[in-house]
Amino acid sequence: MKKALMLISFLFCLVSLQAQQKTIAERLGYPKNTKLLILHADDVGVSHSVNAATITAIEKGCVNSASIMVPCPWFNEIATYAREHAQVDFGLHITLTSEWNNYKWGPVTPSPQTPTLINKQGFLYSTVDSVKQFASTPQVEEEIRSQVRRAIQFGINPTHLDAHMFAVVRKLDFLKAYIKVGREFKIPVFLAREMERELNIKLDTLTSKNELIVDSIVSITPEMMHSNPADYYAQTLRSLPVGLTYFIIHTAYDNEEMRSVTKGFIDWGSAWRQTEFDFFSSAECGKLLKENNIQLVTWREIRDKLYR
Amino acid sequence: MKKALMLISFLFCLVSLQAQQKTIAERLGYPKNTKLLILHADDVGVSHSVNAATITAIEKGCVNSASIMVPCPWFNEIATYAREHAQVDFGLHITLTSEWNNYKWGPVTPSPQTPTLINKQGFLYSTVDSVKQFASTPQVEEEIRSQVRRAIQFGINPTHLDAHMFAVVRKLDFLKAYIKVGREFKIPVFLAREMERELNIKLDTLTSKNELIVDSIVSITPEMMHSNPADYYAQTLRSLPVGLTYFIIHTAYDNEEMRSVTKGFIDWGSAWRQTEFDFFSSAECGKLLKENNIQLVTWREIRDKLYR
Repeated sequence: MKKALMLISFLFCLVSLQAQQKTIAERLGYPKNTKLLILHADDVGVSHSVNAATITAIEKGCVNSASIMVPCPWFNEIATYAREHAQVDFGLHITLTSEWNNYKWGPVTPSPQTPTLINKQGFLYSTVDSVKQFASTPQVEEEIRSQVRRAIQFGINPTHLDAHMFAVVRKLDFLKAYIKVGREFKIPVFLAREMERELNIKLDTLTSKNELIVDSIVSITPEMMHSNPADYYAQTLRSLPVGLTYFIIHTAYDNEEMRSVTKGFIDWGSAWRQTEFDFFSSAECGKLLKENNIQLVTWREIRDKLYR
Repeated sequence: MKKALMLISFLFCLVSLQAQQKTIAERLGYPKNTKLLILHADDVGVSHSVNAATITAIEKGCVNSASIMVPCPWFNEIATYAREHAQVDFGLHITLTSEWNNYKWGPVTPSPQTPTLINKQGFLYSTVDSVKQFASTPQVEEEIRSQVRRAIQFGINPTHLDAHMFAVVRKLDFLKAYIKVGREFKIPVFLAREMERELNIKLDTLTSKNELIVDSIVSITPEMMHSNPADYYAQTLRSLPVGLTYFIIHTAYDNEEMRSVTKGFIDWGSAWRQTEFDFFSSAECGKLLKENNIQLVTWREIRDKLYR
């Protein structure tokens, strides 16, 4: 009996080791050296401009995944769209900051239960530094849970969680809470190797073998946005590495509403988002994906193959 | 001693009677038969479009008073403007409803303290009927107080309170709470004779002699908006009665944001608000006020002469 148990245990370890050694592509059923890409639009729900542009970029462009900011004023509009378009890959952009000057929001959890998450005006902090400095981990955890619960209450079936301004992945205790809540709901959380350096950790020590760590993140920088963004996008897609890449973009129409939301900001501002919208809803983008044998993959596919 | 007291009492009654008999114009220091007008824009704070258009209608047009919706997403923008333009006559548009389809807000008071003011999604009710049916008076009173406190916290010096969708004046107990909170802060509350019929009351029984009841309300109806609004505005100003008239308008730019806020509504919708903006920021409006000897009066003047 003891011998049999040892054998089973040995075989289990072997299978487990093999699973770890498999590439993400293989785990998802693609050839080992596939260039997998999630073309991900952030910040849905923050404004009508973002909602409208992102919906167009999904329906007519290349964007194949996006995440929703539950505490924001236009959440209800995108929740309605998500209910009516259940096939679209919407996750939740876990939000611990309210970063614009004129246009603000608070947490989902009632403020008496989240005093460490809000400033004197009852809004979420403007900066990630304040979140790191003042927010208590139990309240962060409860706010993540509240955002997931509220999304589900509104009929959204979240395919993933990710992190607005990376706030929730920039302190180890917050990161653990984020992973914990994701597991509670069997929703994958966005994790990437790039996060390891700041926290000086190995993500593998926090994750189980079925969970996924994105191989690399790409996102345009201010320098590239101000020089030749179309060239940057094209070069990035042409040189996409093997493995799973997470391309983070921000799509919106550069209109009066968006200019007012982002007033005082150039980087990640209104014109910036129009530029991203223009490229990722263009035929050029689709052509580049095809020519470079890039395989788009959604969080829903990852969730349903690996997490459920 | 007793006789002296009786005499004082008699004189006091006489003075009091005289005060009551004085017209509002006289109480404010104008000739008895002055045509007084408050040209009042509602709903500031609800959207950027409303904020931007109303600021222009105040700075360059005829609008001389407006009221702010404290619970709404663009409150912070208009609070900043109000702080920087302390001379502008801003009151608070006490808000107990969240009436649009896609774009919603909740109360200012934390939701665990206001369960009777919110629907299952945590938003204020869409209709005044639901407010009348479900809202408890103590919670309505607390929410009015929270809106006033929050405005003051943001540096607004409110000149008056009025009633979004008239919700707070359509049930006697709510009306009493509204008057009570106004008195706590020495801020005049908008009351008008037109309110007496629905509640079957005499407002004089609820107000003290220094307080003011507006003689008449004017506001464009859907029928007039769909026929000839410019003609309606001109006729209304030409035939303005003696006494204090409260002209309620709604100013916004008919743009993508405002069309999305008001989606599904024609009356009080986006184009409606552009029409009101166009007239009340036109030279024609100023000309009509002048030609018809109309004396604009602000709530600040009323507040500082009668309430403080």
